[in-house]
Amino acid sequence: MKGLMMDDYPLTMITILERVAKYFANHEIVTRRPDRTLHRYTYGEFYRRSHKLASALVKAGIKPGDRVATLMWNSYSHLEAYFGIPITGAVMHTLNLRLSPQDLAYIINHAEDRFIILEDVLLPLFEQVKNQINVEKVIVVPFSGKPVPGEYIDYEQFLATGDESFSYPKIAETDAAAMCYTSGTTGRPKGVLYSHRSLMLHSFGLALPDSIGISMYDTLMPVVPMFHVNAWCIPYVAVMVGAKMVMPGPYLDPASLVDLFEKEQVTLSAGVPTIWAGIIDLLDQNPGKFKFAPNLRLVVGGAAVPEAIIRRFDKHGITVIHAWGMTETTPLGTVARIKPEHLTESEDRKYQIRATQGLPVPFVEARVVDGEGNVVPEDGKTFGELQVRGPWIAAQYYKGENTGKWTEDGWFRTEDVAVVEPGGYIRLVDRTKDVIKSGGEWISSVQLENALMGHPAVKEAAVIAVYDPKWQERPLAAVVLREGMTATPDELREFLAPKFAKWWLPDYFVFVEQLPKTSTGKIAKVQLREMFKDWKPENN
Amino acid sequence: MKGLMMDDYPLTMITILERVAKYFANHEIVTRRPDRTLHRYTYGEFYRRSHKLASALVKAGIKPGDRVATLMWNSYSHLEAYFGIPITGAVMHTLNLRLSPQDLAYIINHAEDRFIILEDVLLPLFEQVKNQINVEKVIVVPFSGKPVPGEYIDYEQFLATGDESFSYPKIAETDAAAMCYTSGTTGRPKGVLYSHRSLMLHSFGLALPDSIGISMYDTLMPVVPMFHVNAWCIPYVAVMVGAKMVMPGPYLDPASLVDLFEKEQVTLSAGVPTIWAGIIDLLDQNPGKFKFAPNLRLVVGGAAVPEAIIRRFDKHGITVIHAWGMTETTPLGTVARIKPEHLTESEDRKYQIRATQGLPVPFVEARVVDGEGNVVPEDGKTFGELQVRGPWIAAQYYKGENTGKWTEDGWFRTEDVAVVEPGGYIRLVDRTKDVIKSGGEWISSVQLENALMGHPAVKEAAVIAVYDPKWQERPLAAVVLREGMTATPDELREFLAPKFAKWWLPDYFVFVEQLPKTSTGKIAKVQLREMFKDWKPENN
Repeated sequence: MKGLMMDDYPLTMITILERVAKYFANHEIVTRRPDRTLHRYTYGEFYRRSHKLASALVKAGIKPGDRVATLMWNSYSHLEAYFGIPITGAVMHTLNLRLSPQDLAYIINHAEDRFIILEDVLLPLFEQVKNQINVEKVIVVPFSGKPVPGEYIDYEQFLATGDESFSYPKIAETDAAAMCYTSGTTGRPKGVLYSHRSLMLHSFGLALPDSIGISMYDTLMPVVPMFHVNAWCIPYVAVMVGAKMVMPGPYLDPASLVDLFEKEQVTLSAGVPTIWAGIIDLLDQNPGKFKFAPNLRLVVGGAAVPEAIIRRFDKHGITVIHAWGMTETTPLGTVARIKPEHLTESEDRKYQIRATQGLPVPFVEARVVDGEGNVVPEDGKTFGELQVRGPWIAAQYYKGENTGKWTEDGWFRTEDVAVVEPGGYIRLVDRTKDVIKSGGEWISSVQLENALMGHPAVKEAAVIAVYDPKWQERPLAAVVLREGMTATPDELREFLAPKFAKWWLPDYFVFVEQLPKTSTGKIAKVQLREMFKDWKPENN
Repeated sequence: MKGLMMDDYPLTMITILERVAKYFANHEIVTRRPDRTLHRYTYGEFYRRSHKLASALVKAGIKPGDRVATLMWNSYSHLEAYFGIPITGAVMHTLNLRLSPQDLAYIINHAEDRFIILEDVLLPLFEQVKNQINVEKVIVVPFSGKPVPGEYIDYEQFLATGDESFSYPKIAETDAAAMCYTSGTTGRPKGVLYSHRSLMLHSFGLALPDSIGISMYDTLMPVVPMFHVNAWCIPYVAVMVGAKMVMPGPYLDPASLVDLFEKEQVTLSAGVPTIWAGIIDLLDQNPGKFKFAPNLRLVVGGAAVPEAIIRRFDKHGITVIHAWGMTETTPLGTVARIKPEHLTESEDRKYQIRATQGLPVPFVEARVVDGEGNVVPEDGKTFGELQVRGPWIAAQYYKGENTGKWTEDGWFRTEDVAVVEPGGYIRLVDRTKDVIKSGGEWISSVQLENALMGHPAVKEAAVIAVYDPKWQERPLAAVVLREGMTATPDELREFLAPKFAKWWLPDYFVFVEQLPKTSTGKIAKVQLREMFKDWKPENN
């Protein structure tokens, strides 16, 4: 028997956009423009301009399902695109301005973007891309105050062609609203297409008290770029609950961010660990100097947050909330909140818990599965792959690429290797492609590397799998020594021995001048494995 | 273009039941049994027993869509029914134990309940119903410790026939999960059928920080009965977030409730104003005696909360949260939270705002529409009917009854008369059937009654519409005077004059010995209108 509720009322952005205009029209959106001045306006103006953008897009020929790309920093005009594009039924496709022109061109062509909206400060980047792509209209936000070059369309003039009284088309909750490409370290970027439904459900999940906890009393500053999984969807929650927003524009240096925290009394910010590492140095160097909102919280994701960072922020009365997610999970999957029964544990244990990836939020199901397909026990030791499913997890990539990322029973394979600690806290230990599979057991490359880098003579270390006729794979450590220092394989093996099971210890140590790196400075393990693909034990 | 997320992942109770078992198995559910002893167990046991109940129901022949009724106070076994019934695909139908045997029989027959689960302390009520109904199995929870009479099935023995390893059937999110009947003061009760989807979305809406704000750190005690719109769906949120629950059983007197607040350190409770009126008297009489949780909040709904109650609780450091809803709205529609920009207003104004019905929660759309179909301005004066729509608002009644409650464009007509105050706060002023329509303008019977009862000689007053050839309707006040006191119509009119527009003042005052009442003690305006239906001005 069916229920008799309004189950056909669609979960779309239209409802939250109408809500913010009706009840929070006077709440503010503050943007640091490229010239460092602050632009301020209200949700009321935001609403009218989003409607004008939608209307202008429709008049210019945009149809439901079309892709409209953005190439922008965090700003009010980017927020207008966040809503103005999807309320026409079209798909907002955010472009990562840190990608190479080649990758950008590939993504724009792959997504078949019809229009692109960009900030004029990003024109130098765009000009390296434009000859490789074929978009119909290029709309430029004139942030610098200079006239927009004649070959492009001025965003403000484009808006002026639209009506404030935009009437919404019929949008199904399963229609696509937004699109992001993964920044996979291997292979081509793959497109993830978010439905209105998934974004709205995710907004509920994100705003819950035990997740991030977001209220109309908050002032939200996403430092995470709006082209990075929709700024973790903070903009949608802001509109849903009517929270003031602060947009840092292109200025992500510690001093600029801290200045906005103070001036606008930010209560909640979000970004990757690197951002917070810079800020905590600034705070430690200037104790008591900054007057922040008393309830300032920082959401950290995108990479594991070191426990030391959490401790250092605590000393300043600032709470770090560690969360985990991926482009394919909208992104929120888990949040590291201590359960009430663990409040009585030691301070050290509590910091350990806060540095795990935490517990899945309601409606995200997570399981950690070993090589034989068994769910691992909650012992904090047994390795497995983290797999997730739920209403805001990707079901497939755009154009059906890489179907191997889903299990036969419909779970998304994160390719993260994890253990489950007592209490259910998930802790990531490696990537599946980097873990060493030795005789059916898994060895974490990351844990060995972290331990090796604790040795005084080691500057850098990377651990990879090499072929072994008996165990299939065995660990090899590539080590860069600090200048003027020495260490032998036996010394390093002895150094590691107390921390690991004997069979975890690397069989081989190779000393190198430097390790291969990716364009973003990460160790390029793919290249490293390539270097050692014909490794023979007798080499050592 | 469709999104490519897991949009077919259904929003059902199964996901939250699995979640609580996986991450919060050791959190407690505490119940005051009819013999006043406390029963304690964990979500882990609750999960196993819910599965056994589901399995036993299926073995006994319950099929998806079947209705299984409950006749119970708030208790752990009622919570087992809340989940054990719907996870089979069947519909849990809660029966209001305060109804007359005749109404209960009507509802059971109308819903075509196949089984009924009840507490043995309610057998005396059930025995007055049983000859008027035709249910297949009567399952009795043996709370009193006495053996269950042979003609019924012992709940514990019934559970023993089920397996712990219940495997879920495929349930669509639009399938019905629960059923409640309205307790309409006019006409027959009407059935509302909640889908899994509507209950799960409502749980998100209820748990948001700006709604009620519910966390795994909370200890939740629903005083509102589980047969009253699913205890406002607090049990579902408790399971979703893993919050400890406290069930008061049949003891709703102030001393028993306050005792549980203290013993179990309740942080969030919910109930109708009458409950809190009794408790605040007890607290005022015993200042400083009780040691409550420091963050105790009380959700008040079901009827408007007097501002004085909010003020009195504040003096004890206890926050009253006023919320509005109906059986047809699952129930949460609006919550009276002060917006940040109104924090600077006077204390009096802030209390006024907290005593309004407040702002709609995300995804509930509300509009107040006057007699001509226009949305009223935010002036705090213009009357209109409150209408709502959204994913947890009823789309129709069971068996298609009373279709007139929905507008042509799909909004639910609450039959509440409201004004909208500046800032969007909704304030209810009357019921549509009680408001007096005088020459196209509306007069609130409730406001006139409240003012009249402020006169020292007036014990009770009710204001109704009587026919008027010129204005269609004009107000008549039926007044009961306090013993030994007198007042004339002119005196009362003069008393009201400073508070109201002149055309609001009742044309007629009739002094009566007593006012007709309903079974629950409310003034029976239907009867009163019947008494004065042939009213002629010359009577006065």
